[in-house]
Amino acid sequence: MKTVTAAILVIGDEVLSGRTQDANTQVLAKALGAIGVLLCEARAIADDEATIITALNELRGRFDYVFTSGGIGPTHDDITAEAVGKAFGAQVTIRDDARVLLDAHYGDDINDARLRMARIPDGAELIPNPISIAPGFRIENVFIMAGVPRIFAVMLDAVIPTLDSGAVVSEISLACPHGEGVLSAPLAAVAAKHPDVAIGSYPRFKTGGGFEVTVVARCADADALVAAEADLKAMLAGF
Amino acid sequence: MKTVTAAILVIGDEVLSGRTQDANTQVLAKALGAIGVLLCEARAIADDEATIITALNELRGRFDYVFTSGGIGPTHDDITAEAVGKAFGAQVTIRDDARVLLDAHYGDDINDARLRMARIPDGAELIPNPISIAPGFRIENVFIMAGVPRIFAVMLDAVIPTLDSGAVVSEISLACPHGEGVLSAPLAAVAAKHPDVAIGSYPRFKTGGGFEVTVVARCADADALVAAEADLKAMLAGF
Repeated sequence: MKTVTAAILVIGDEVLSGRTQDANTQVLAKALGAIGVLLCEARAIADDEATIITALNELRGRFDYVFTSGGIGPTHDDITAEAVGKAFGAQVTIRDDARVLLDAHYGDDINDARLRMARIPDGAELIPNPISIAPGFRIENVFIMAGVPRIFAVMLDAVIPTLDSGAVVSEISLACPHGEGVLSAPLAAVAAKHPDVAIGSYPRFKTGGGFEVTVVARCADADALVAAEADLKAMLAGF
Repeated sequence: MKTVTAAILVIGDEVLSGRTQDANTQVLAKALGAIGVLLCEARAIADDEATIITALNELRGRFDYVFTSGGIGPTHDDITAEAVGKAFGAQVTIRDDARVLLDAHYGDDINDARLRMARIPDGAELIPNPISIAPGFRIENVFIMAGVPRIFAVMLDAVIPTLDSGAVVSEISLACPHGEGVLSAPLAAVAAKHPDVAIGSYPRFKTGGGFEVTVVARCADADALVAAEADLKAMLAGF
C-alpha cells in the first residue's frame, strides 16, 4: 500500500513566545494516523509573511499534504490567507461563497473586519466551520485551518474523509520495569530481528515519583507487529 | 541592541505519532525570552538520520542558536549524536570526559549501552546533566539535549548563562470583553500608531464555557510598550 505523507505548519507568535502550547499537532497526528497518513514534520513559525511563504512552499513540495493552523481570523495580525495566496501566486479576494456564509451568520453585524474572513485565494475550496462559521480552505495539497483547537478539530473532521489514505500503522506499548541501560541490548536484538517494525523505548518521570520506560512497537503489517510483540514480551519476561 | 535568534529541533517519532505532546518548546521559549533570545522556529521531525542531518544543517545556518531535544539515550533508536556528527563532518567516539562521568555514576553497572551515551562528536563541549548524568553537548551553535522534559530543563539551566543575550521583549495582556469582529478596526488603529509594538489578539474557548479574547502587546522598548498599553486600555474602555 502506498505511503501518504503530511506536515503541519503552526502559524503564530504565541507558540514561539511560550504564551501558548500548541495542541493541534497531536490532534492532527492521531487523526491522520487513523487513516494511514504519516505526519512527518510539525513546524511552528511566527506571523511573518515571508516566513510563511517560504515554509509553505518548502513543505507543500516535500509532502503529500500540508495543514496550517492559525492566522485566519478578522484582525490585522491574521495574515495567513494573504501569505498563502502569494505562495501560490493566486489572487485573494472576498469570495461570494464565503461571504454568503458570513452574511447569514452575522446578519446586520457583518462588517469589514468579519469580511476579512471571506478573503479566499482563487481556486481554493472552502472547509466548513460549524462552530464559528468563518471557513478554512483547501488550495491544491494545502489545508488552511483555524488555530483555536476546537475549530481546528471540526475543520479536520470535514477534511479527513477527503484525503487519500495509506497503510494504517498500528502500535503496541509495553511497560518495562527496567531502565534503558539494561534494556538496550536485548531490545536492539528484537529490533534487528524485526526490521520492518519501528521499535522505540521512551523513558519518563512518573507523576508520583520514580521513572518508567515504555517500549513501543509500530508497524503497518499486523502479522509483523504481532510477531514483534511476542518477542518483546518474551524478552521482557526473561530479565 | 542586537537581535539573537534561535530554533528548536524536536527529534522523535513519539511526537509525530501523537503519542507524546512536546513540552520542551514552551520551556525553551520562555527561558530564551527572559534573556532576549528570539525563538523563531520549532520543528519536530522523526528519528531518521537523513532527516535530522538536513534539518540541522538548515537551521544552524539560519539561526544564531539551535537546540535539539531527544534521541541521546542508550537504545538503538537513539541516533541523534551520530547524525549530529555527520551534519558537522565530525567523528563521534566514546569520549574520555563523558566516560568518566558515566563510570563514576554507574560503577560496576556500566555497560556498552550506557557507554553509547558517552559518544560525543569531536570538538563538542559537554552539557552537564545532574539528574541522570549522561551529558548533552554543544557543537558550534548547536546544543544537543535530552528529550525527557525534566532533563531538558536542567541542561537548559546550564546552557542559558553561556548564551549571548539580546533585547528582552516584554509583554502585556489585556482581557477583552468583545469579539474579534468588533475589536478588529480599533485594534488595527492602535497597532498602526505603534508600529514597533507587536500587537495580537487571541480568541479562545473558556474551560467553563463561553469565549474570550486576549489582546497581547510585545516590545523590547519599555516606553513604547507603556504607550501602546495606554492606548489599548483607552480603546477597550471606549467601546
